[in-house]
Amino acid sequence: MIRYGFGVDIGGTTCKLGLFSVEGELLEKWEIPTDTADGGIKILSNVAEAVENKLNERRIMRTEVLGIGLDAPGAIGEDGVVSQAVNLGWRQYPAKEELEQRTGMKVCICNDANAAALGEQWKGGGAGCRDMVMVTLGTGVGGAVIAGGRVLGGAHGIAGELGHMTVYPAETERCACGRYGCLEQYASATGIVRVTRRLLEKKNRRTILTDTPELSAKQIADAAKRGDEIALDALEVLGKTLGSALAAVAVVTDPGRFVIGGVARAGNMLLDITRKYYVQDVLTEGRNTEFALAALGNDAGMYGSMRLLLD
Amino acid sequence: MIRYGFGVDIGGTTCKLGLFSVEGELLEKWEIPTDTADGGIKILSNVAEAVENKLNERRIMRTEVLGIGLDAPGAIGEDGVVSQAVNLGWRQYPAKEELEQRTGMKVCICNDANAAALGEQWKGGGAGCRDMVMVTLGTGVGGAVIAGGRVLGGAHGIAGELGHMTVYPAETERCACGRYGCLEQYASATGIVRVTRRLLEKKNRRTILTDTPELSAKQIADAAKRGDEIALDALEVLGKTLGSALAAVAVVTDPGRFVIGGVARAGNMLLDITRKYYVQDVLTEGRNTEFALAALGNDAGMYGSMRLLLD
Repeated sequence: MIRYGFGVDIGGTTCKLGLFSVEGELLEKWEIPTDTADGGIKILSNVAEAVENKLNERRIMRTEVLGIGLDAPGAIGEDGVVSQAVNLGWRQYPAKEELEQRTGMKVCICNDANAAALGEQWKGGGAGCRDMVMVTLGTGVGGAVIAGGRVLGGAHGIAGELGHMTVYPAETERCACGRYGCLEQYASATGIVRVTRRLLEKKNRRTILTDTPELSAKQIADAAKRGDEIALDALEVLGKTLGSALAAVAVVTDPGRFVIGGVARAGNMLLDITRKYYVQDVLTEGRNTEFALAALGNDAGMYGSMRLLLD
Repeated sequence: MIRYGFGVDIGGTTCKLGLFSVEGELLEKWEIPTDTADGGIKILSNVAEAVENKLNERRIMRTEVLGIGLDAPGAIGEDGVVSQAVNLGWRQYPAKEELEQRTGMKVCICNDANAAALGEQWKGGGAGCRDMVMVTLGTGVGGAVIAGGRVLGGAHGIAGELGHMTVYPAETERCACGRYGCLEQYASATGIVRVTRRLLEKKNRRTILTDTPELSAKQIADAAKRGDEIALDALEVLGKTLGSALAAVAVVTDPGRFVIGGVARAGNMLLDITRKYYVQDVLTEGRNTEFALAALGNDAGMYGSMRLLLD
């Protein structure tokens, strides 16, 4: 009888492994280092060994295991080949086939951002919602669109790349993508630092922040929580640009919920500001779309990989 | 052996019926008037009668027919109940069940805009493309998003409502939806007339157009084809706002093709201008997204209804 499955999230430093029941309960999680030497050739043999050890340790029969869900950074084709994952050293690497051969188990694979969204939809901030859009605010702005329970891939691999929606065409600084006025220039960790520096230049508000090379999103979030005017202004810019962008998303896929990740420190404050501008901007019928914070943190990819396996 | 199916597009004035082979060939099409008297109570009995007559006329056995695909204006639930179709007089009307009972055949039903998009994807401008976005420029701007071959419905029925994406927040005139700067205010038939009137007020360009109550999108399109400066400017505004909006759509669902409908008169000219601004605005990976004109005209809904039946 099939009772178990593995969810594995391959990152540039560690691989996170989870043993799940097929009902979706996480029974145990652990990590192994990601060995990126020699083009990452050992990564999957290490994963296979870790899975094998776990089966022995728990006296689980192979016939009781559904398989292994896997995620990795980079673009991954439907054939399970990772075109390029710079952090792992993989290039045109047939990860699905490789792990299947090493374990004799069924393997499913998808991109790490998509896995994180699937995980959040299954057991996190998106639970119970088949149509959701996830936005992760990190160094950049990542996104994923889930419609009818499936992550949209897109024709050119840019579905959910919300960080590069133009929100302020008059912007004079260039985005990393070469264009001007992308959401990412305002609503990411680097974006809010950039916005704060601009506000600090004006010297017209009281603030505990100073324009040092170390100025970080964390400092700004902490200052905002203490009521700092410049920090609050920067957070307002973030929420306004994000809220407007999500209002545009609403008339494209009309999700039931937006799940925002990567904002632990100023989470609820940011959610409130974003929703305020979203409601102002969106077509009336979309006003009740829910907003939630991502709930699984670094485990989201592991959960999503297991979810993928259950499909 | 099952060999035939019917596709029926119910409009406020006429119902368009098509007899298709299950391979997707349109064998015959015809129309019957839509009888909207008494809350539209006779519409489906007329459709059932027309189908019955066609079977007799062509000596087709019922066992040879897959069923009837149906579309109607308005919001339609998964249970086949039309919540409200003002033009037909229907309100909480169980259309699917009703036609099934009258014909004894399998019936599928969907919204008319979605059916038109499905039809275009099957046999029209979107043929061969499983991820497409359709935009129809009419009195307003309609839209539909197809991902993985399925039309997205959305959590609040506003998926694909691209006409109400905010493209110019500084707009001072109000959109019909109560907000300011919606795509529809620039890129619809009424939108281009409004933009043209504004351009005419400035009196700084040579033009054959005059600000009469009769000024129409048709006149403007004709004038643009003859090189009229004001008309060309108005078309440029339309293409710029539409192109920018589609660049935003690209980072949400990343379609392989945009299909533009309702623009017969200035079709290719408009496609070129729209694509020019789209390419300027979109994230690099999305630049090669195809643009095509809708190809089925008023038959799109009938085709889409048949397509739905084949699913």
